[in-house]
Amino acid sequence: MEPADKYHINLLGDAEQALRLTRLKELMRQAGIRQGLVRNNANIYYLTGRVFRGYVYVNTELDSPRYFVRQPNHLISPDHSLLHRIRKPEEIPGLLAQGGIDTSAPIALELDAVNYAEACRLAAAFGQTPEQNLSGALRQSRAVKTERELQMVRESGIKQTLVYERIPHLFREGMTDLEFQIEIERALRLEGCLGQFRVGGSDMEIFMGNILTGENGDTPSPYDFAMGGEGQDPSLPVGANGTVIRPDKPVMVDMNGNFNGYMTDMTRMYVSGTPTEAADKANRLSADICAALAAMMAPGVKAADLYNKALAMATEAGMAEYFMGHRSHAGFVGHGVGIEINESPVLAPRSRDVLQAGNVIAVEPKFVIPGVGAVGIENTYIVHDHAGAEAATKAPETITRLD
Amino acid sequence: MEPADKYHINLLGDAEQALRLTRLKELMRQAGIRQGLVRNNANIYYLTGRVFRGYVYVNTELDSPRYFVRQPNHLISPDHSLLHRIRKPEEIPGLLAQGGIDTSAPIALELDAVNYAEACRLAAAFGQTPEQNLSGALRQSRAVKTERELQMVRESGIKQTLVYERIPHLFREGMTDLEFQIEIERALRLEGCLGQFRVGGSDMEIFMGNILTGENGDTPSPYDFAMGGEGQDPSLPVGANGTVIRPDKPVMVDMNGNFNGYMTDMTRMYVSGTPTEAADKANRLSADICAALAAMMAPGVKAADLYNKALAMATEAGMAEYFMGHRSHAGFVGHGVGIEINESPVLAPRSRDVLQAGNVIAVEPKFVIPGVGAVGIENTYIVHDHAGAEAATKAPETITRLD
Repeated sequence: MEPADKYHINLLGDAEQALRLTRLKELMRQAGIRQGLVRNNANIYYLTGRVFRGYVYVNTELDSPRYFVRQPNHLISPDHSLLHRIRKPEEIPGLLAQGGIDTSAPIALELDAVNYAEACRLAAAFGQTPEQNLSGALRQSRAVKTERELQMVRESGIKQTLVYERIPHLFREGMTDLEFQIEIERALRLEGCLGQFRVGGSDMEIFMGNILTGENGDTPSPYDFAMGGEGQDPSLPVGANGTVIRPDKPVMVDMNGNFNGYMTDMTRMYVSGTPTEAADKANRLSADICAALAAMMAPGVKAADLYNKALAMATEAGMAEYFMGHRSHAGFVGHGVGIEINESPVLAPRSRDVLQAGNVIAVEPKFVIPGVGAVGIENTYIVHDHAGAEAATKAPETITRLD
Repeated sequence: MEPADKYHINLLGDAEQALRLTRLKELMRQAGIRQGLVRNNANIYYLTGRVFRGYVYVNTELDSPRYFVRQPNHLISPDHSLLHRIRKPEEIPGLLAQGGIDTSAPIALELDAVNYAEACRLAAAFGQTPEQNLSGALRQSRAVKTERELQMVRESGIKQTLVYERIPHLFREGMTDLEFQIEIERALRLEGCLGQFRVGGSDMEIFMGNILTGENGDTPSPYDFAMGGEGQDPSLPVGANGTVIRPDKPVMVDMNGNFNGYMTDMTRMYVSGTPTEAADKANRLSADICAALAAMMAPGVKAADLYNKALAMATEAGMAEYFMGHRSHAGFVGHGVGIEINESPVLAPRSRDVLQAGNVIAVEPKFVIPGVGAVGIENTYIVHDHAGAEAATKAPETITRLD
């Protein structure tokens, strides 16, 4: 099956899907899981290359998954022996049994993603209560990208970089952070950005990204992003708040890099006047930390060691007080990125993640300095099988002058 | 406490919060719930007027809620006798006990919103397993808006209407649906739109709205919105897909009306040439159905009867085949709207909802006609204590010519 058939339930093609399934099933076996039912959109997209309303059933004893599609959808061809149209999930176990599949083992569910009521309903369909959590195996599987996934990350990085290089031309004197952001949103969208930031976890919310200037950089946010900001409204308290961009205050731009379902995460600094020495120093330190961490990245390296290296460099430069925030501090310096903006591994002091080739990691050593604001860059790196990661985000790392 | 104090945990002010809590507690009592713990962002915003990282504890025997804030946040004053800073939810029951509160009753949780693993963790903090579902009471409480909430809906409606009236000037010949949408997104954002569509349910995803023209209107989407569309990418299969806007094909515009945390939902039709008779007829029928349903809306009216009235009018006009879709049909003609785009009541054939004064209901009788595309309007109505609802969305209802 070639991926060219847009009506096939599996848009990935058999070979690509097999790469992902082989990995997932091995992780399921390690977790003692025999069968699992996937219904989260991000995970369905990972396993099929499309989002549909329904379920993907994975059994470690079977080569192929089974698909259960809940909605008539003429974009998906029904002519597939492994696909069943269903009206409700209670039909699934009977259909599996008709196919000769033993469903007596515990049915693992995405217990970190599916709400309590639905998890109970799905398990009850199998005559069970929720017991095994499939979320961990999916998270670990997705953390190691295939070559196809890496290509999609690179493609997003190229487009995001193109737009970032246009940013200086989008500025007009007297603009607020919000007005500036809106022009960048438009430029991203015209380049093909989907707009959507997929975030894991029900308490994470953001629109198209975060632009911070001046005092607003020191305003904490309830969301678990690296930086905060008051936002436009108490209903979405993060990011730009209408601050006028002043010539002596740099602007941190951290906008959406989702051009194809796989995201890159990039932050760059801009200034309409001349950067102050303090801003310039912090930005150079951030770029140096990125470079140092990228050089260290290799299979077997501990995520916590990368965090500690970043903190040590900040401390040595006398900037520990401002590292990852000032009035409040984020607890990490980097995070996996892919289908969602917050994947594994996490570069945090107590992270137990260990790097593997195929990880895609956004590194964002940022500083919030009173009187200066938020300063720092962010790059998305691809971990290879040797030391030295590849940057997918390539805009110039110095503070760029706004036209 | 006046809402003017932006550092107070409760941005609503005591009187407004009491209106909402009185209602919620009455619904909790009716459901046999004595105490509940709220952690979903939309519900926290409903109860406090802000989003924060933490929990709101509501007990039917207590006048005031208790607040548990998980993150240091200098936007929230700690100087409040009912507020506790915590590091983890396991601290909550002990702090409540110290305050003389009996926590032995089942602790109700938002089991439709909180993931399985977290629900179990929260219940375990109380020495329990999840038993009572708080989601229903919150959903019913939020379905009846206070006067303050209605004012916020009206405010969003005024701003959304202003932008919709500018839409004809944003069109340029030869534009694709996506290019047109991007200019509307920018106009909305410049008017103060927050961009974010809050949607309940983990499987609902959309960016800033939906624009459909031509054949794309007949493409089903996996999401439970009234209309579909192929979208830009298989990772987000809904809405505009790059179709060039032709003079003989009308364009359906259904874009984000969230200007303050409370949304209005409005759809209007545009055409760059002259509308065909088929499009014009369908659009007039849609407007007539809206008017008929608005006239019927009053406390005590069954939501299912409103759906049936809409279907009867479509059938009488010989348009039943195209009602709410053609190749696939949405199962509702309207839905509650407020903090989230999919609230109660739902205007569907098997809905058991009964209208109440203070409901805010988006009505969207839409048709998908082969060769014409998606046609129809949508208004957001406020239900009063007498028959005849108030429209919060007031752009002209005819098919508007694009400049």
